[in-house]
Order: sequence, then structure tokens, then C-alpha cells
Amino acid sequence: MASGEQDGVTAAVLIIGDEILSGRTQDTNLRDIARYLGVHGVDLAEARTVPDVHEEIVAALNALRARYDYVITTGGIGPTHDDITADAVAAAFGVELYEHPEILEMMAARWGGEVNAARRRMARVPVGGELVKNPVQGPPGFTIGNVFVLAGVPQIMRGMLEDVGHRLRGGAVTVSRTVRVEGSGEGVIAAPLEAVAKAHPAMSLGSYPFFGPEGYGSNLVLRGRDPAELEATVGELIEALKDAGVGDVREIAA
Amino acid sequence: MASGEQDGVTAAVLIIGDEILSGRTQDTNLRDIARYLGVHGVDLAEARTVPDVHEEIVAALNALRARYDYVITTGGIGPTHDDITADAVAAAFGVELYEHPEILEMMAARWGGEVNAARRRMARVPVGGELVKNPVQGPPGFTIGNVFVLAGVPQIMRGMLEDVGHRLRGGAVTVSRTVRVEGSGEGVIAAPLEAVAKAHPAMSLGSYPFFGPEGYGSNLVLRGRDPAELEATVGELIEALKDAGVGDVREIAA
Repeated sequence: MASGEQDGVTAAVLIIGDEILSGRTQDTNLRDIARYLGVHGVDLAEARTVPDVHEEIVAALNALRARYDYVITTGGIGPTHDDITADAVAAAFGVELYEHPEILEMMAARWGGEVNAARRRMARVPVGGELVKNPVQGPPGFTIGNVFVLAGVPQIMRGMLEDVGHRLRGGAVTVSRTVRVEGSGEGVIAAPLEAVAKAHPAMSLGSYPFFGPEGYGSNLVLRGRDPAELEATVGELIEALKDAGVGDVREIAA
Repeated sequence: MASGEQDGVTAAVLIIGDEILSGRTQDTNLRDIARYLGVHGVDLAEARTVPDVHEEIVAALNALRARYDYVITTGGIGPTHDDITADAVAAAFGVELYEHPEILEMMAARWGGEVNAARRRMARVPVGGELVKNPVQGPPGFTIGNVFVLAGVPQIMRGMLEDVGHRLRGGAVTVSRTVRVEGSGEGVIAAPLEAVAKAHPAMSLGSYPFFGPEGYGSNLVLRGRDPAELEATVGELIEALKDAGVGDVREIAA
């Protein structure tokens, strides 16, 4: 796991918004971004959630952009007073914000020229930034340096992501397989799982237990960059589990 | 928000696990912890998600516990090789791990004395730590200094949270009682539980189902600030459950 993350291209996600930290909103952007990055061969190495506080956003963004290849932020680019992400990103890069003519045009086209002050806030982009297309609705996001600034609304965020992938210096794509064990707990699974994990340090093996009316067990997820080694590892794991007395074990699509 | 964080009691959440950063698992613990802390008057000021990498966990934990009043971690306390949270927390505090006799007893009681090496991993607690009760299933979590170390499986994490609130400084004091239902699933429990919850909006009612070789059912945790109303609510819940055809229902000490 560690080795994989350190070898490849890395990214961090910075989730910006009081609504996440208050528990009012369930974030789903982290998972969506993680999966999207995985497909593009980029390892999501860390995620942080910070409130709508200028200093907090600036500090977290500077820490993350210095350490990882890419940073993707979500939230805080709307028209209201608490949408301060653009200001914070500009401050982090030490540049000014300006009203992007292309965005002003889009707004004029959509709102018939009467673009109020609140909406004009959404036209502000840091000097040196480029736009990130928004195929859903509303103004675009932007990118500056190694940072991509996306919306917080999930459907808009996902749409903006489509204009991010082609700009990423992707590493090899990580492939994954899942082996499902039923009727055996992690206490039984642990030893064979660890043995196989040690034999394949380039693979990432994780155990994710489930409990429910249908029974209990664990999904063992194997991830790696070499499909051939992954194939072999899956076979070895199933063998090792059976040797350890695990009865119900099979690969599943997941 | 900012002022609130500075004035009030603050906390951070540290989510530990490759499964979150790979996008395979949708985290819901952050929202649940945020809401729980809110009820107790504690501001969740930041959250971080890190992989199952020793140095990353230690660095993030030390950064967070130095800055905020409390840190709650989730994940990585199971028996498998990738469960390294206890080791990382001990390292962060510069103390050793030891096998907690109480946990070993619980394990022996459940697994008939045959506690293998993998399971014994789950009995390890940092020197100076205290246990955090697990009303769901499996070994307890623990707390050391201003850090609470909880499970990653949501239903278990929520159950462990019930033993955290009363240890938080400055938070509104709440009292809790636990009603245990055996042999009935949440499908049967849900309606009466919801009815009683609606009748007592000032009370917090949570259902923590358990499944395992020993059987299935749910522990219903009632929490509130008014002991008298709590007492009444416990009585009404037990009545409502019996009226709904739930046979085995009783209050337990938890």
C-alpha cells in the first residue's frame, strides 16, 4: 500500500465546507474523485476537510500542493459570502483574482446581461489560472499550478472532473480484484491474508468485514499495477484461505 | 465558525484506511461523528483521511492532537496485518502496547480460550490507555491522552461513540441507557423505535444491530440530558417494542 502510493503519481483532495464538518451534509465527492483518479493511474494519498475559514484553506492547500503531484479542491466556489475558495487559492499562490471575460460572457448570455455582484463573484479566477469546463450548470471551475478547484455539488463536481483527467500525468492504472469470504471472521482470515500479502509486497491486500442478516464475513480486495501478478495473488490467496479452513471463499465482481 | 473553533471545545477526526482513499468504501463515519460531537457541544474543526501507512498515521495524529482538544480516529483496529492503528497511536505517544487482560478475558469467553495471534492483536492497548466500550461486537476501542481510537465499521464505530461523549469536556452532559433486543431484526424494531423517537425529540435514540454465531438482534441506546425523560422514554420504548411483537427485550447495563 505504502510503496504503491509512494512510487506513483500522487494527489490529495481538499474538501472545503462547514456543512461537511457540521455533519449536515454527507460528502460523496472524496469517493468519486478517488475512483476517477484510480482509473487515471493517480494515487489519492491524503484527504483533508476544512471549514470555510480563509487561513485554514490557505494553510491546508499550501501543505498539500507542496507535497503531492496534484490537489483537487471541492466546495466554496458559489456566489454567497461564505464561498471564499477562489480568494484562498489566490492567496495561497500569492496572486490576484480577476473577472474572467469568458465567464462574464457566459453569465451575460445566460442572465441577459444583468449579472449582479453575487454572480460576478463566480467569475473571479486567479491570475495565471485556466478554466475547468462545467458541463452541468453554472460557471466553470479553474486550475492553477497543480491545483484543480471544483464545485462542491456532487453532480457538478463530477462533470468538472471530466475536464481534469486529460491534464493529469497519469501513472500505470491500478487494477483490483475482490475475494469474498462468508461465514468466517477476520480472526481466521488474518494469518493466510498476511502470508500472501508478505509474498507480494507490490500488491495491496485489504480486508473489509461485513455483518448483516444474510450473515457475516469479509471482502478481501487485492490491488496492484501488474495484472499478471494480481491474477497469481488472487489464486494464492484463495488457496491459502482454503488451507486455513475457510470454507466459503470465492472471487466476486466488485 | 472560526471564532467558534477558537472559543469552544474543538475536535478533529482522523480517518485511517486505504479503502477510503481508493474510493472503494464510502465513508459515513465523519458525518456521524460530526453530528454526535454537535450534540455534545464540541466543534469538529478538521478531518483528515490517511492510508494504512505507519508514518502517515503518526504524523497526522501528532499534528491534530497538538492543535485540537480531542481527536477521534476510525479504522485500522482489526486483527489483520493492515490494521496498524494501535501501533501508530502508541508510537505517536511514545509508549508501548500491551495485551489488555480485560480484552483477553472477553476473547477467551467468546472464543473458548483459543485466542490466536491475529485476534490477540486486537487486545493490544497503549500503556496508559483506557478502554472504550463496544456494545456491538468484537473487542473495545481505547482512549489515550486526548485521542479516542474507534473501529472503522460504521455500526461498531457508532456504538463505541456512546462511550465517548461523557468523557468530553465542556460538552453538554448527557445520560444514556441501553435496551437490548435479541432475535428480532431492525425491520421489526424500526417502526416502534421511530415512533418513540418522534415522541421525544430531545432524546437521541440509536440502533446498533449485532450479528454473529451467538445470534442477532440490536442494542438500542437512548441518550438525553433529562434523566426523568430518559427514564420515561426507556419504559415507552420497551412497551412499544413488545406491542410490535418483539419478544426478547430488556434493559442492560452498557
